[in-house]
Amino acid sequence: METYRVCQLMKDSRFEGFLMVRGAEKKTDKNGRDYVDLNLGDRTGEINAKIWNWDSLQGLPESGKPVLVRGQVQEYNGRLQMKIERWRPLNPEDSPDLAELVPAAPRTPEDMLAEIRETVKSFSSENLRKLTEEMLNMAGERLSWFPAAQRMHHAERSGLLHHTTDMLRLAKAAMEVYPWMNRDLLLAGVILHDLGKLEELKSDESGNVSDYTRDGQLLGHLVRGITLLNRAAERTGVTGETVILLEHMLLSHHGETEDGSPRPPMFPEAEALHWIDMMDARMNTMKTAWEKTPEGAFSERISSLDRRIYHPWYTDGAE
Amino acid sequence: METYRVCQLMKDSRFEGFLMVRGAEKKTDKNGRDYVDLNLGDRTGEINAKIWNWDSLQGLPESGKPVLVRGQVQEYNGRLQMKIERWRPLNPEDSPDLAELVPAAPRTPEDMLAEIRETVKSFSSENLRKLTEEMLNMAGERLSWFPAAQRMHHAERSGLLHHTTDMLRLAKAAMEVYPWMNRDLLLAGVILHDLGKLEELKSDESGNVSDYTRDGQLLGHLVRGITLLNRAAERTGVTGETVILLEHMLLSHHGETEDGSPRPPMFPEAEALHWIDMMDARMNTMKTAWEKTPEGAFSERISSLDRRIYHPWYTDGAE
Amino acid sequence: METYRVCQLMKDSRFEGFLMVRGAEKKTDKNGRDYVDLNLGDRTGEINAKIWNWDSLQGLPESGKPVLVRGQVQEYNGRLQMKIERWRPLNPEDSPDLAELVPAAPRTPEDMLAEIRETVKSFSSENLRKLTEEMLNMAGERLSWFPAAQRMHHAERSGLLHHTTDMLRLAKAAMEVYPWMNRDLLLAGVILHDLGKLEELKSDESGNVSDYTRDGQLLGHLVRGITLLNRAAERTGVTGETVILLEHMLLSHHGETEDGSPRPPMFPEAEALHWIDMMDARMNTMKTAWEKTPEGAFSERISSLDRRIYHPWYTDGAE
Amino acid sequence: METYRVCQLMKDSRFEGFLMVRGAEKKTDKNGRDYVDLNLGDRTGEINAKIWNWDSLQGLPESGKPVLVRGQVQEYNGRLQMKIERWRPLNPEDSPDLAELVPAAPRTPEDMLAEIRETVKSFSSENLRKLTEEMLNMAGERLSWFPAAQRMHHAERSGLLHHTTDMLRLAKAAMEVYPWMNRDLLLAGVILHDLGKLEELKSDESGNVSDYTRDGQLLGHLVRGITLLNRAAERTGVTGETVILLEHMLLSHHGETEDGSPRPPMFPEAEALHWIDMMDARMNTMKTAWEKTPEGAFSERISSLDRRIYHPWYTDGAE
Amino acid sequence: METYRVCQLMKDSRFEGFLMVRGAEKKTDKNGRDYVDLNLGDRTGEINAKIWNWDSLQGLPESGKPVLVRGQVQEYNGRLQMKIERWRPLNPEDSPDLAELVPAAPRTPEDMLAEIRETVKSFSSENLRKLTEEMLNMAGERLSWFPAAQRMHHAERSGLLHHTTDMLRLAKAAMEVYPWMNRDLLLAGVILHDLGKLEELKSDESGNVSDYTRDGQLLGHLVRGITLLNRAAERTGVTGETVILLEHMLLSHHGETEDGSPRPPMFPEAEALHWIDMMDARMNTMKTAWEKTPEGAFSERISSLDRRIYHPWYTDGAE
Amino acid sequence: METYRVCQLMKDSRFEGFLMVRGAEKKTDKNGRDYVDLNLGDRTGEINAKIWNWDSLQGLPESGKPVLVRGQVQEYNGRLQMKIERWRPLNPEDSPDLAELVPAAPRTPEDMLAEIRETVKSFSSENLRKLTEEMLNMAGERLSWFPAAQRMHHAERSGLLHHTTDMLRLAKAAMEVYPWMNRDLLLAGVILHDLGKLEELKSDESGNVSDYTRDGQLLGHLVRGITLLNRAAERTGVTGETVILLEHMLLSHHGETEDGSPRPPMFPEAEALHWIDMMDARMNTMKTAWEKTPEGAFSERISSLDRRIYHPWYTDGAE
Repeated sequence: METYRVCQLMKDSRFEGFLMVRGAEKKTDKNGRDYVDLNLGDRTGEINAKIWNWDSLQGLPESGKPVLVRGQVQEYNGRLQMKIERWRPLNPEDSPDLAELVPAAPRTPEDMLAEIRETVKSFSSENLRKLTEEMLNMAGERLSWFPAAQRMHHAERSGLLHHTTDMLRLAKAAMEVYPWMNRDLLLAGVILHDLGKLEELKSDESGNVSDYTRDGQLLGHLVRGITLLNRAAERTGVTGETVILLEHMLLSHHGETEDGSPRPPMFPEAEALHWIDMMDARMNTMKTAWEKTPEGAFSERISSLDRRIYHPWYTDGAE
Repeated sequence: METYRVCQLMKDSRFEGFLMVRGAEKKTDKNGRDYVDLNLGDRTGEINAKIWNWDSLQGLPESGKPVLVRGQVQEYNGRLQMKIERWRPLNPEDSPDLAELVPAAPRTPEDMLAEIRETVKSFSSENLRKLTEEMLNMAGERLSWFPAAQRMHHAERSGLLHHTTDMLRLAKAAMEVYPWMNRDLLLAGVILHDLGKLEELKSDESGNVSDYTRDGQLLGHLVRGITLLNRAAERTGVTGETVILLEHMLLSHHGETEDGSPRPPMFPEAEALHWIDMMDARMNTMKTAWEKTPEGAFSERISSLDRRIYHPWYTDGAE
Repeated sequence: METYRVCQLMKDSRFEGFLMVRGAEKKTDKNGRDYVDLNLGDRTGEINAKIWNWDSLQGLPESGKPVLVRGQVQEYNGRLQMKIERWRPLNPEDSPDLAELVPAAPRTPEDMLAEIRETVKSFSSENLRKLTEEMLNMAGERLSWFPAAQRMHHAERSGLLHHTTDMLRLAKAAMEVYPWMNRDLLLAGVILHDLGKLEELKSDESGNVSDYTRDGQLLGHLVRGITLLNRAAERTGVTGETVILLEHMLLSHHGETEDGSPRPPMFPEAEALHWIDMMDARMNTMKTAWEKTPEGAFSERISSLDRRIYHPWYTDGAE
Repeated sequence: METYRVCQLMKDSRFEGFLMVRGAEKKTDKNGRDYVDLNLGDRTGEINAKIWNWDSLQGLPESGKPVLVRGQVQEYNGRLQMKIERWRPLNPEDSPDLAELVPAAPRTPEDMLAEIRETVKSFSSENLRKLTEEMLNMAGERLSWFPAAQRMHHAERSGLLHHTTDMLRLAKAAMEVYPWMNRDLLLAGVILHDLGKLEELKSDESGNVSDYTRDGQLLGHLVRGITLLNRAAERTGVTGETVILLEHMLLSHHGETEDGSPRPPMFPEAEALHWIDMMDARMNTMKTAWEKTPEGAFSERISSLDRRIYHPWYTDGAE
Repeated sequence: METYRVCQLMKDSRFEGFLMVRGAEKKTDKNGRDYVDLNLGDRTGEINAKIWNWDSLQGLPESGKPVLVRGQVQEYNGRLQMKIERWRPLNPEDSPDLAELVPAAPRTPEDMLAEIRETVKSFSSENLRKLTEEMLNMAGERLSWFPAAQRMHHAERSGLLHHTTDMLRLAKAAMEVYPWMNRDLLLAGVILHDLGKLEELKSDESGNVSDYTRDGQLLGHLVRGITLLNRAAERTGVTGETVILLEHMLLSHHGETEDGSPRPPMFPEAEALHWIDMMDARMNTMKTAWEKTPEGAFSERISSLDRRIYHPWYTDGAE
Repeated sequence: METYRVCQLMKDSRFEGFLMVRGAEKKTDKNGRDYVDLNLGDRTGEINAKIWNWDSLQGLPESGKPVLVRGQVQEYNGRLQMKIERWRPLNPEDSPDLAELVPAAPRTPEDMLAEIRETVKSFSSENLRKLTEEMLNMAGERLSWFPAAQRMHHAERSGLLHHTTDMLRLAKAAMEVYPWMNRDLLLAGVILHDLGKLEELKSDESGNVSDYTRDGQLLGHLVRGITLLNRAAERTGVTGETVILLEHMLLSHHGETEDGSPRPPMFPEAEALHWIDMMDARMNTMKTAWEKTPEGAFSERISSLDRRIYHPWYTDGAE
């Protein structure tokens, strides 16, 4: 049996292979029989699955761990669903390609972190360099695998680095077009703007987010990012305008009050940060929807974009 | 007497030199005496002026032409105003530096047009190349001096080319970050997206916009741009998907229904065009406000941004 | 067995007779058995139906064709559903009354088209007459059966003509009350305002809309209508104000930017067109909801109106 | 000296003739001298005027009364202003044509009232006839000259009757197109919908509104209209559905919650009333703006419409 | 078997005891078998239940009456559901504690009514006292058990009195802080503001609301309250400012146009009434959500609040 | 000459007495003569004034200091204006009653601070007590005179304490009605919620605010308050839930995202804080407008409330 990727599964497909467990729960059906309702995924997507007639003594599949499964894909209420016929946790001799089992950034974390560290080293403002380095140190090892979101954009292993480094590239290009801006300030803003997400989301090391943290719910990453920045300022002894400029950039990067920024960007570097953030987030969301849509067709309505998407043929001959 | 630029004028400044007339009207004061109410400007700004005790037989200063004036700057209701003591139109021997008298793009039109033409030549899609070239040809010579707006952003001589070429640079950078997009389509969209403005605004050759045209009022540059594109398609014989993709990019580049785009961007190149357009327009508006604000100070509320702007010191030592 | 109309079906009704297939899809139930999920309708309404235990070798009921069915009406999750016991496609000897099987305009297309053609002949403006006639010719035979919408209002065979002719009557009445308007311009606007829908919707000849077209999605009928008008202007050689007035009427007939018109109506005939369009669309929606609601009762919430509807007793004695 | 109408006055016009005083107030100029600031008008418009060097012992021109004035039209801050040189109140021998001095409905109140009374007589529902007649009787003689608004639409002598009778004509036409509606209910709704304005506005007999009443401010004509209707119901002994249907029509005729109707129209006659009201109000506003705009030109922004208006040439030859 | 309260039930709980029927309906399952779908509740909450394999000859459980049931709690589509194994209506010898079976105000109606009557007696304004007493008399006995809403807040037996008396306490406290307000007017406003709900909602004596009345749908409790007040004014002979102040308070107590008040509060007592009403309604909604959420945890999204709720530990040691 | 208060001044009033200077600026009139444009005020209000024919060698009246003036009140463009005839700064022997010259809270700062300190002492939570005391200590002496706003509400000397103590009284009353809330948490939230304003506004000791600070513009008092709280937590060693609950209360006290709170209140004490804050702010604004409006009359539109205000007679006899 050929092993499909999840995004290739169709009604009546049969599947056998490794998949990542992304949440599993025991439930009872209408006739009082236990079953397990779980989500399974690989790098390319996710599918709901059921294990019927569950023996309650058995341990549940563990979230964030790969399993070996065999099953049949069905359609229920218009959505695909896998009926699991057999499954087991990993044996020591199993060696699934983990890179295939979770969506992940296209570059390695080491690569991306190096690019960021390089950028910081190039800062001529000592204050910005110190603050940014301290913030990166405070972020620690979790930064290497943390996603940028639960669902919206860059919801993947190392998605936060992916988002940050793509934004860095856009920001450096913007410096070519608007050379009158302060380069260090803009780049520092890019690097720091979403670090508060490390305190906002509960993610496992595969980049799978189960929920928001208490901090995330009650304060959000904008405000929590400012607290972290204040701590970094205290540790590095940096004071004055530099700190407040960065505080403002963290606070205003969502742009409008109704999008959660109580202040709009009030100097050019904050404004540029906002648009670069918007553009990179949206392009990532677009790409995900566009890749799933066949050429010449429209997607269903994408809720995060509130519209349907068209995937063009892009050829001169296309009708 | 040292010759100030307009942006340097203050209460009690005296001024003597060439200024551009940007509208002039005869009025009557409370005591029944005629006077002339006019706006004078140079590359750096604009000031209201009065010529009191006007002799009605005299010809009015002509809008869009330079004059030589001498006057005194006063403050009236909190705004600067120049009381003209003497003035005359240009003599044949006058040779004011015209580049100093109107705000203008930082590069020459020839330069910018060459960059655009170069870009079009590089398209591998023949359809996109033909359509874009035809549209540029239809735009004709006016493109070289046309502004991008009456007031909001790039309201300057050759502002439309300025806006377009800065966007081209951003778009090319975006292609580095998102190489899966169709380069020709994105770049063609950038070049064409605002050409409808040539039919929307009434501008003189100094880039000074007096009003909207009837087409501009009743249809706007998005829809008029589509009509022009249809004409170009007919002339070049291009049909099929290429045309409709560009139509959609013209229509959706304002992004949201409430911002005047009846359709949101529905494929990645249209989405990218929207953000690049937003970013470039806003950065230009920001720059104008930021340049006028002293370091360490806040501007008044900028109506096009609906906020006040801060001009940072940008130094490590700044409090 | 008495033959019910679809709007009369209740839980436990039995039905035998001809119905129109409005979409059919093969699905698999939870136990892996194939079934067919389809919608069946007549002039008065639509009901979901299931054919359980489907033999996969059999051909699916064809959308847009009548079938003869026998079944039992059940309730599932609060909605009626017909369990099909037997069905077959039409035999040559079957002669169902097609007028009973699809919702349709109350007048014949010939009648309505004649009224429109008559109106156009009466125009004293040659330009308006030429443009309107050309547009009607371009619309061609599809105009006779095209619906006005997929769901909202006049979603019926010949609904576009129904909507147009009812609006014509309102417009002629408005000319009595506001005789200072230009009659030909208003009536031409009414006739042309929705012709772009022919390029926006995918409809079969029974007036059943399966989806939006690519043009419909990417541009909408307002903008596509303008393109068609431009083509008609080119063919008839009409230029000048007349064309742009009609372009504006097409563009502004939804009234507000947030309802999809990038320009609001800017002269009286455009304003009148907008209100007549709104009123006729809403009265049709109201009528549909009101007819389904018993006297003295409230409907469920009608999503297109965002409210519940009351059907009054309308008698002096009613409590 | 030819006597101009107010709408014809231009800078430097001289004027001598009768005008209506629409408010007059004594003020002091910067040099401590008294003057009178007043508004003068005729059927066609209104102009601000000043009487300089006012002798304080003199009586002020009385609002709502005609005066004979001579003066010179000047421009101040871009607006026309009449400098009064001589003026006096009316002598017994003066006989100005009062119909020329105030804006008024095009038909006589007697005519319009007769049409309304006729309509009511034709009702087959005795309840609706009784309620409507009682409400008209309660309205009394003020109905004959009451305006429909202070500024927005039908702000003229007998404007309320003008608005009501134009709506009646539209409603009767709507009954032709939608004959399934209840005619008496719709027509009664039209006649009653704005009678609450008699308690909402302070108007003099020339239709000039000085302010809102306390009831108008605190409750508005929708709610006050319901109170009046309840009183009419009590007096006529009518109860039951008829009363509540009319209450709902009064309450919902503004259509949307944010436009001041706490309930949207919930049956067809209420829905029709709303659109007919909207259309007639807007067409009247449009007409006023359109009449003031020269052919081929755009108006300034009309605040009640939130847009500029175009007055077309309406001829085939127009460019 | 220990008897749980409804809010304590979990998957796999078994239950035996008295519950209140809150709606019951016969339905047919996919296999054509009848079953009963019903909601059962006690003072603490509500649970959906099913009686499978229903014998159609049997009478349905009666809504608003207690039954004795035995069943098993299951989970279906993520929500709890009770599978009823046995049930019967009450026997004469059954004596369930009715106070345990419906959610109810914490104080007795007698107590709360006495507090209100006491308050009214203390009014020094005779007009306000007369009007308020008449309104309370008109409300009659239903006031003692009427709820304040179907779902949002104080949806419980005597909820209207509960809401009113809590607001009275807040209003009396507000009088301490803002002693310049008119005490009698504010307190009368509190007592009267929601009495229109008696005509807006259909409630049984247990405070369970099945639907809105026709008056409730077509007019709402704000406007219907004004009609009632007018009747009380007529009966008591009270006229003048007092009546219109109360009318305005009834009309404006929702605060904003878009929340259903066509007028915002326009004097201090009306403003205070609005905030006290908002605060009490929201605190009650908050309490309900907060009680259901374990300490240290977040609730699901509460639709009436449009947010998730956190239940703090409230202790110094809590992490 | 009787000495008026500023709120009593009318056209043609003469005035002689002490007034507070609230901003003064030298300007030039149309004829090139210098004059001084200044604002003068007392406890009851503010009036614009002019000193014509200014001798430039003289020192300007100093903002925030009292002066002795004599002048005449005139009306200019519909607003009152005082023409200053004589003025001088204070002599040592002058002893104006300073309490009469600036608007101020009705109680002394000592009194209000004592009430707050007392409240804090009563906290049973040591964490809340420590944090609140530290924050009060950090606020320091400026708290005793700081206003709560530049214009909206409690714009007066000690207005911040006034607002806080009135809210404390409401909060304590709320604890009686909703005793299930955590008293210490609610009261701490009240005391701390606006302390960030000390860093947001530039105020002199008379409570007169000249502008926002850089922190105020770029971050606002909500976010700056959180930074201050973090510092207090660090100093007192308090960690855990207590800190985050207070952070959330500071952040959410404006209630809605569009009102500047990126998070809505998510537990009952935060919700109560929001409503108490709203109510107290609005009642103060209402009082100010209501006091200025004569009985039986309406105010002009109050911009901070977006409505006109009515001042009732409040008597049974009032029509």
